[in-house]
Amino acid sequence: PVYTQDDVTKHRTLEDGVWVTYNGSVYDITDFVAVHPGGDKIMLAAGGALEPFWALYAVHNQEHVLEILAEYKVGELCPGDCKEEGATSADPYSSDPPRHPALRVNSQKPFNAEPPSEILSENFITPSAFFFKRNHLPVPRVDPHAYRLEIHGLPRGPVCLSLEEIKTKFPKHTVTATLQCAGNRRSDMNRVKQVKGLNWGISAISNATWGGARLRDVLVYAGYLPGSSARHVQFEGLDVDPTGTPYGASILLGKAVSEEGDVLLAYEMNGEDLPADHGYPLRVVVPGVVGARNVKWLGKIVVSEEESQSHWQQNDYKGFSPGTDWDTVDFKTAPAIQELPVQSAITVPQEGVVLGAGQGTVTVQGYAWSGGGREVVRVDVSLDGGRTWNVARLQHGEEGGAAPAPPNRSWAWTLWELRAPLPPGARELEIVCKAVDSSYNVQPDTVAPIWNLRGVLSNAWHRVRVRVSED
Amino acid sequence: PVYTQDDVTKHRTLEDGVWVTYNGSVYDITDFVAVHPGGDKIMLAAGGALEPFWALYAVHNQEHVLEILAEYKVGELCPGDCKEEGATSADPYSSDPPRHPALRVNSQKPFNAEPPSEILSENFITPSAFFFKRNHLPVPRVDPHAYRLEIHGLPRGPVCLSLEEIKTKFPKHTVTATLQCAGNRRSDMNRVKQVKGLNWGISAISNATWGGARLRDVLVYAGYLPGSSARHVQFEGLDVDPTGTPYGASILLGKAVSEEGDVLLAYEMNGEDLPADHGYPLRVVVPGVVGARNVKWLGKIVVSEEESQSHWQQNDYKGFSPGTDWDTVDFKTAPAIQELPVQSAITVPQEGVVLGAGQGTVTVQGYAWSGGGREVVRVDVSLDGGRTWNVARLQHGEEGGAAPAPPNRSWAWTLWELRAPLPPGARELEIVCKAVDSSYNVQPDTVAPIWNLRGVLSNAWHRVRVRVSED
Repeated sequence: PVYTQDDVTKHRTLEDGVWVTYNGSVYDITDFVAVHPGGDKIMLAAGGALEPFWALYAVHNQEHVLEILAEYKVGELCPGDCKEEGATSADPYSSDPPRHPALRVNSQKPFNAEPPSEILSENFITPSAFFFKRNHLPVPRVDPHAYRLEIHGLPRGPVCLSLEEIKTKFPKHTVTATLQCAGNRRSDMNRVKQVKGLNWGISAISNATWGGARLRDVLVYAGYLPGSSARHVQFEGLDVDPTGTPYGASILLGKAVSEEGDVLLAYEMNGEDLPADHGYPLRVVVPGVVGARNVKWLGKIVVSEEESQSHWQQNDYKGFSPGTDWDTVDFKTAPAIQELPVQSAITVPQEGVVLGAGQGTVTVQGYAWSGGGREVVRVDVSLDGGRTWNVARLQHGEEGGAAPAPPNRSWAWTLWELRAPLPPGARELEIVCKAVDSSYNVQPDTVAPIWNLRGVLSNAWHRVRVRVSED
Repeated sequence: PVYTQDDVTKHRTLEDGVWVTYNGSVYDITDFVAVHPGGDKIMLAAGGALEPFWALYAVHNQEHVLEILAEYKVGELCPGDCKEEGATSADPYSSDPPRHPALRVNSQKPFNAEPPSEILSENFITPSAFFFKRNHLPVPRVDPHAYRLEIHGLPRGPVCLSLEEIKTKFPKHTVTATLQCAGNRRSDMNRVKQVKGLNWGISAISNATWGGARLRDVLVYAGYLPGSSARHVQFEGLDVDPTGTPYGASILLGKAVSEEGDVLLAYEMNGEDLPADHGYPLRVVVPGVVGARNVKWLGKIVVSEEESQSHWQQNDYKGFSPGTDWDTVDFKTAPAIQELPVQSAITVPQEGVVLGAGQGTVTVQGYAWSGGGREVVRVDVSLDGGRTWNVARLQHGEEGGAAPAPPNRSWAWTLWELRAPLPPGARELEIVCKAVDSSYNVQPDTVAPIWNLRGVLSNAWHRVRVRVSED
């Protein structure tokens, strides 16, 4: 039989059956779950594709694993984008791409979702399928042959480039850069007092290797010369609201044209064409800068004396005092978020799990990152709510084979780990992490004093409470 | 009669008499203190020169003020550097310059002192006499005619420049930049647990306008070309310890050669020759970077693949986890402090003062600054220990007539003020301030989690407790 992706996605529990897909086939692995050598983790793949998990866990790249899988085959996956019957072209989201069911969805339309947090610290590079998705509008379907990028505001006049021209006229650069949504960890702020915005957990952050032309090279091609009176580079997406207004944002011209800024017009993500959710065929990647300025489905660039006048630049993505409410807020008084502050979070263990006292040790893992290319130089971890601190072992990109980042160009996150003895007799641990960046900026202790009405910039110490079993 | 500076300095209280100097004369103003229109503030000048105060408070620039002063004249000030009798050339500090007695001395030899904090927020530019002094060694006396700056490690070979050449071969640039000692606010850390270091209050920070040649221009003159394998610029002072080892430090080459780095070889401070305590005849000013790298009495520059190997670069001025002690510390594991984190403090009112409830309002003033040229975008002030927050009014340099700083080149501090109603019935206020910079980095809530064995990087919220009188 032939099954649609939706048929597969309905099978995500032991009760409903656990189905997965691999290479165009559908498997019912319900009976295999109990004997999976990797344990429960297999349930993350329930209802979706195995490929992104097997990319994470290379142990599966063996002949006998495929032989075992073959025993569970129940049919074929409908090729292409088999659409749900109900979807009609009247729904502007009808052409949104399929997504992996492991993602935790904060909003379906527009699509906003984050991966399970333990996936983040499994691999320095986040597989594209699990990279957090943050769309403001329906995903535009772009014909790569008809695609043109317009560039305005530079001496050579409006310049128009095809995708092929962008790929062939300019050297290809790759940059490994972490993107983080301004609203990452917003749920911590909601616990203090309700804010407006998607209720992100700790996983609206991911790390990928991006390939493309340097924005600097393209601007120079379009006639950019130093000394221009322009201060900003505006970007417009091809994603539009019902009135036809596109998504838009801008960054500082200095960042765009700097030799060390590493801003890309990216057409590749992790070695493949950009996925539809990440801006196919072309997006901006602005390392060190909040996700919102990394405009996807890029249609137009305008070099200007002014910031983007878009809603998202002017009246959103700004930080305010905890005392500012919706009656008193004046968006003109705060600068648009560009570089983000230092951040870290605990991905393992998760809130509420029970550790076995018999193991004697606890392993804590997580990520840390800072904006502006500032390197993470230390992560402190506490097992007692912040009273005493241990220093975590940092895993910079080098351990994954990458060259050490030059100063102030540490665009990628740092994964970290602490193995520490369980405090004798402890029945509960409050695990806390906090990071320090190369400017020695640190995270604030608590959430309430950085609470803000939009719930952005949530970077207080991350706290996880776990229990310890009596043996 | 003729009095020495020491004679004057002995008269600093109403009991001993209050003496001051002005334009070479000595005045006993004991009887005037009670009728001074500006109140108690006059006592800050006791025992020293009036000039730096009158520069701050322009109201004194009137004929009748001089007439009043003349009535109190008691003699002349010994011209030149009248030395104390006890001073001998066996004391390496014997040629240290005289200092204003208003400074609060943390260490006499080497001389380390900070101004009374209320002086800081009185004026955007700190008068040189009150600029905090942080010497590591005796002040060298340098003959400006014999002075030579050596530059090593660049293609034109060792280059040697006289002071006159530095002043005439290169365009003069002025930069208004705040310098802060890494140990500013160390006393807050000592209250948590004893650290090693000078017990600085909140005033190891000051702001001045520096004039000199751009380091970039000098390095290009000496043959610097982009693409060099060098990564660091080392500086050596002419101040030496008893073994002849000079003070030394280094900064990143990228900062030194950047068009936007604004690093100066400064020969002027606030429009005059550098004072002896601030590096006469030439010092480095590295805007946005910790004071310790702003080497004074500059003797030698070395462009190198390596950091300075000096004690102060390798085994001091680094940050560690609160859990690291002198038995476990490994200085190699932490980066040398360069850019400093976001900082702020309350200068007015001071701890323990009594406010009159009848006034109905409280005025809170202070400074805020961040490293790396990051602008201060907001200061939050709480009157209730951090439970609720008000937004302070910021006074950037522009209000003093300066042009707005370009992005990421906000080298000068931001003074701020909040006027707020006294909470009805409150008998005590815990006033707290915290700043936010343009990367939206914030200060941590409390001191203990950033405590470190050297007491550097002390930037937790600043707290001041005051009482409110019953009317």
